[in-house]
Amino acid sequence: MPPPSAHPGSPTLADSVRLAEDGVHILDRRVFPFEHRWVHARTVDEVAVAIEDMVTQSSGPYFAVLWGMVLAARETAGADPDTARKRLQAAGERLIATRPTNDQPRKAVEWVMSAVAGAEDVAAAALAGAQAGDADYRRRSREMGRAGAQLLPEGARVLTHCWGDLYLVGLVEALLEAGKRPSFVCTETRPYLQGARLTSHTLAEMGVDTTLVTDAMPASLMRAGEIDALVTASDRVTMDGHVINKVGTLQHAVAAQTFGVPFHALCHAPDPHSATGADVPIEYRDGEEVLHTLGRRSATDLVRGLYPAFDVTDPRFVTTVVTDRGAFAPDRLAAGYFGEESR
Amino acid sequence: MPPPSAHPGSPTLADSVRLAEDGVHILDRRVFPFEHRWVHARTVDEVAVAIEDMVTQSSGPYFAVLWGMVLAARETAGADPDTARKRLQAAGERLIATRPTNDQPRKAVEWVMSAVAGAEDVAAAALAGAQAGDADYRRRSREMGRAGAQLLPEGARVLTHCWGDLYLVGLVEALLEAGKRPSFVCTETRPYLQGARLTSHTLAEMGVDTTLVTDAMPASLMRAGEIDALVTASDRVTMDGHVINKVGTLQHAVAAQTFGVPFHALCHAPDPHSATGADVPIEYRDGEEVLHTLGRRSATDLVRGLYPAFDVTDPRFVTTVVTDRGAFAPDRLAAGYFGEESR
Repeated sequence: MPPPSAHPGSPTLADSVRLAEDGVHILDRRVFPFEHRWVHARTVDEVAVAIEDMVTQSSGPYFAVLWGMVLAARETAGADPDTARKRLQAAGERLIATRPTNDQPRKAVEWVMSAVAGAEDVAAAALAGAQAGDADYRRRSREMGRAGAQLLPEGARVLTHCWGDLYLVGLVEALLEAGKRPSFVCTETRPYLQGARLTSHTLAEMGVDTTLVTDAMPASLMRAGEIDALVTASDRVTMDGHVINKVGTLQHAVAAQTFGVPFHALCHAPDPHSATGADVPIEYRDGEEVLHTLGRRSATDLVRGLYPAFDVTDPRFVTTVVTDRGAFAPDRLAAGYFGEESR
Repeated sequence: MPPPSAHPGSPTLADSVRLAEDGVHILDRRVFPFEHRWVHARTVDEVAVAIEDMVTQSSGPYFAVLWGMVLAARETAGADPDTARKRLQAAGERLIATRPTNDQPRKAVEWVMSAVAGAEDVAAAALAGAQAGDADYRRRSREMGRAGAQLLPEGARVLTHCWGDLYLVGLVEALLEAGKRPSFVCTETRPYLQGARLTSHTLAEMGVDTTLVTDAMPASLMRAGEIDALVTASDRVTMDGHVINKVGTLQHAVAAQTFGVPFHALCHAPDPHSATGADVPIEYRDGEEVLHTLGRRSATDLVRGLYPAFDVTDPRFVTTVVTDRGAFAPDRLAAGYFGEESR
């Protein structure tokens, strides 16, 4: 059994990776909301495998890596501090390698590694570092959400794709606090159906009017003038404003531009290690996943599937990148976020 | 049991609505290719219900209406010719009303009604008219296919959406006859998965290299330069070049234009009764269908679905409309097809 939520009142998925004495408990998003099943990872390696197996995704791996690093630190009990730090570094590399496209797991590792630098009690320092990383992610999501809410009008009809997790929760909380009463259209987001299962469920939990469409319908709604803004999270945004996110984001952004709908991409911060879109590795997952729906074959046996899990949206299709330091046009992002414009 | 195929050697779906002494046998596309189940419609009303229930779709309703009209004519046995024609006209109206967007069922009714005009033996004339309509549709699909094949290069990588039925079969036959060895990327086409189940299965039956993607992936492939042409069938093309087809066609056409990929829309002929896109009724099907996949719930219980079954692609996103009288740019379509340019 997982420990009780540290964030009561939040949507279910906003606290779905939890540290306990006996390991890390991860809500299994592959079956949510049809089942509320928790995967119990007892070791850092079991945490890594859970991330690879898509037990959790979106913001989930960030938290799983934080708590996984705490497990790794516990596993070093009895080792001298330098040896413990070396083992932690190796555990961090294992965790970062689970999924190559999102850059948050690396940041989670950095929170812990910077906390243990020079520490005598590595396990205690790792826990403190992970807790600081947890609080920081939640704070930044709230601040980013407030910046995004300022861009949206009263009663905005917002299209979103895939599942933006705490980024989206932060935005919706800010919209609701501002009394802006948004409504959402979610794409179902095949093959994992994050939109059908996670996004629309969470928006309903938050009391937001929500409609589900298939992944092929957004352009038609935008042509009909039924969408005021496209808003998605991002797995990474490059310094020059390329948005890397769930495959399909490009398609919706292209249609948005064509029909005069602004596209706001949520990200805590641009990635200073990624100058441009070509620098970001795109994960190809098993094409078999496209041939199945919820574990059941949904395609002829005579075909093969192809599954690029993410795509790259060029800056020319992005209206605004919304960060925890405010909203910037993509060509002003790096200067705005890291330069003097940022305050 | 259905009678044997009148077109041996064709793909399964190219002869999937068959007339028999005991009624019309319709291959159930809702479960194909997982099951080969035939629905037996004994009366014209059962044919209409089968079309409404999506037992068959794409080209299927055209043939179902042809043979349904033959059943209706049989049901008038004993009536005088004028009474029989009145009943046939009512049956035709019932059949046309089954699905409002595609204009082929109306043409099927016209084949039969023009054949029975002035006839003494209405049932015999209806059968002859339906058979002529069957042969005409197949001939036109072949001729359109040959015109389309001329637009595609050797080894073309073709993206298609939904299931183009005999239009697509005609194109692929022409490509294969010309030795052009195409490969296809099919979108799965939620919610009915026509691409995953019907298109990719049929292309594989024809020996064509085929890859399946989700409905959100085409733009990403086009950005990467992996698609040479977008080709879809159409439920209707207006005189001014608007293409009405399965929802999602617009989205793919917009992306195609953005990334320099030509979009060729297949249609026997523009519809002289539809001047422009706003003249075509768009069918909204039950939003519950978006919440399910192959009969199983695939979305949270907390959301509602929206299902516009078709969308309208503006002429500015259409490169070519391919007809049985050749290929035309959308702004030359009406003059080209009906005017002197057509021969």
